[in-house]
Amino acid sequence: MAIGDAGGISPELAAKVVADPEANADDLMVIGDRRLLERGAADAGVTLDLPVIGLDGVDAALPGGSFMVDLGNCDPDTVPQGKSSAGSGLAAVQNFRAALLATNAGHADVVFFTPFNKHAMRLAQPDYVDEIGFIDATIGAMQSGREFNVLDEVWNARVTSHIPLREVADRITAERIYSSLVLTDRIMRGAGYERPRIGVAALNPHAGDGRNFGTEDDDIILPAVERAAAGQLAVTGPIPSDTVFVRAIRGEFDAVMTMYHDQGQIAMKLLGFDRGVTLIANYPFPIVTPAHGTAYDIAGQGKADLGATRNAVKLGRKLALMEERTGRSQPCGKLSDLFARALDRAAEWEKPVT
Amino acid sequence: MAIGDAGGISPELAAKVVADPEANADDLMVIGDRRLLERGAADAGVTLDLPVIGLDGVDAALPGGSFMVDLGNCDPDTVPQGKSSAGSGLAAVQNFRAALLATNAGHADVVFFTPFNKHAMRLAQPDYVDEIGFIDATIGAMQSGREFNVLDEVWNARVTSHIPLREVADRITAERIYSSLVLTDRIMRGAGYERPRIGVAALNPHAGDGRNFGTEDDDIILPAVERAAAGQLAVTGPIPSDTVFVRAIRGEFDAVMTMYHDQGQIAMKLLGFDRGVTLIANYPFPIVTPAHGTAYDIAGQGKADLGATRNAVKLGRKLALMEERTGRSQPCGKLSDLFARALDRAAEWEKPVT
Repeated sequence: MAIGDAGGISPELAAKVVADPEANADDLMVIGDRRLLERGAADAGVTLDLPVIGLDGVDAALPGGSFMVDLGNCDPDTVPQGKSSAGSGLAAVQNFRAALLATNAGHADVVFFTPFNKHAMRLAQPDYVDEIGFIDATIGAMQSGREFNVLDEVWNARVTSHIPLREVADRITAERIYSSLVLTDRIMRGAGYERPRIGVAALNPHAGDGRNFGTEDDDIILPAVERAAAGQLAVTGPIPSDTVFVRAIRGEFDAVMTMYHDQGQIAMKLLGFDRGVTLIANYPFPIVTPAHGTAYDIAGQGKADLGATRNAVKLGRKLALMEERTGRSQPCGKLSDLFARALDRAAEWEKPVT
Repeated sequence: MAIGDAGGISPELAAKVVADPEANADDLMVIGDRRLLERGAADAGVTLDLPVIGLDGVDAALPGGSFMVDLGNCDPDTVPQGKSSAGSGLAAVQNFRAALLATNAGHADVVFFTPFNKHAMRLAQPDYVDEIGFIDATIGAMQSGREFNVLDEVWNARVTSHIPLREVADRITAERIYSSLVLTDRIMRGAGYERPRIGVAALNPHAGDGRNFGTEDDDIILPAVERAAAGQLAVTGPIPSDTVFVRAIRGEFDAVMTMYHDQGQIAMKLLGFDRGVTLIANYPFPIVTPAHGTAYDIAGQGKADLGATRNAVKLGRKLALMEERTGRSQPCGKLSDLFARALDRAAEWEKPVT
């Protein structure tokens, strides 16, 4: 678990989830600054009994159960609470990178993080655009990740994400939609769905209204849906995007596949997605985080709701069990080297994020 | 009031609204087939005491209060209930056209209609694309209409509507956004808002995220918003489209201006827009209708909920009062000629809808 932005509720959430019996987080490697977690525990009003290991001790035998690796990279007295700062951003970048590198090398099964603030991360690393680009570059991913939003019983996956709206129509190919459906089906089976029912959103108003308002629904989305259905996936669509979520929350679908970012986010945010979980998949390991942000307005007050964070940990554990079943290789690389790389600010800045 | 599709709940709703004390519909010109309204009244379990005038009587002195003009164009025994048909579509086209022509000539102040079915209308008139194109062609509009969706205390207006998503980015110009804001402000003042607060949705994810995900939010939407604000309109934006509706329903905005069809419809449908009202404005007179459809599944059962229809009539009356204040000219053209034109199927089919 990477501790997120120090200026907001992330340290408090990290402390709360370690102490939470329902999250049952008895196997966490908490990554960040020990002092920050202590402040989070004080904010949360919880007492933590967590072994703390310094960077010089991580290559020795690690304790069973949860423990903390102290990166010593964020003195709470030097970062302001309630707003973004370069100091909190840098520590968040380092914690996240450390968790990614350690997990990619097989020292953990899932990456979990408490909320970041993108602005703070850019203060520390100006070329930071979004999580997926950062992960791709950090672990040298063969294929880019895909984001899933999970709220109660509805999942949302999307074919395109952080791109201009004007590029969407050209970026949704039948191949890409099909592979997104297959990936969604696989991930959801890993999360316990026997045969997830996926509703596929149309691109154009009224699903193109019989080619009156665009042709992509008939020419691109429909063939992809038919190909997936022929492969025994439980997919339906294209469905006009203003009704597909209404049908999903009525219980007709387990997931909605949207074509672009806002098509899903408008619905999920209205449905209260701040209670939900964001999953980034399509990597050798799953990455989970609560959907809400750093909540600077209530930082340090002990008021942060643990619900989404708890759900994120639970989902991560379910998915890790799937990974175990499919077999993982042995850890490779020394943790101390990986953490040193995560902390090496200069080296990372010289390297262009590709 | 034009009676909508005969196969669904439209005749029942028409009868119910005439009889409803809360709608206070004491000044309606009901346009359609007398036999259909009678069937609607029987379905609804209401008794109507409505003067009925044939086509040969409409040029004489008309009765005060509500009355019906019997176009004799839809025998209930010849159209199936619970599905679309060419017969019900043709009558709906004729009723709508009659209401538009009569109102455009000054014989009424507002056009109100109970739900149509687009498929049925296309069976009767194959080139029927959407309401706005039909209205434009029918009254020879100088400028095209704009659709507003009104749900409880939130209005939704849009800059583009029934076009392919791939064309949206090129169709939202600063001029068009600005004129949409001015129109929305004017219409809402007419509906009783002293200074309507309008939240303007961004086009791109995260409002472009500082030009990372597109430039239109900074280069097109923001200047339009600033120009409108300089003109004393209460406008805010661009706001990421996944939060603007959340803020509106919390009471921060009276209206949301969206850039494209689904951006607003996803939100409005999730919020229960079937209870809402659709207003088509930017013509010499307002056009209102309940937002829901023909509900073929409950046709003829007396179960149709009057709420949205009642709200549509109330909104139409408010807007008509505004029109009265701004002054209307005297009616021109004989009603009998206008209705004959509305009923002239062959003539209309020969004329391309432009």
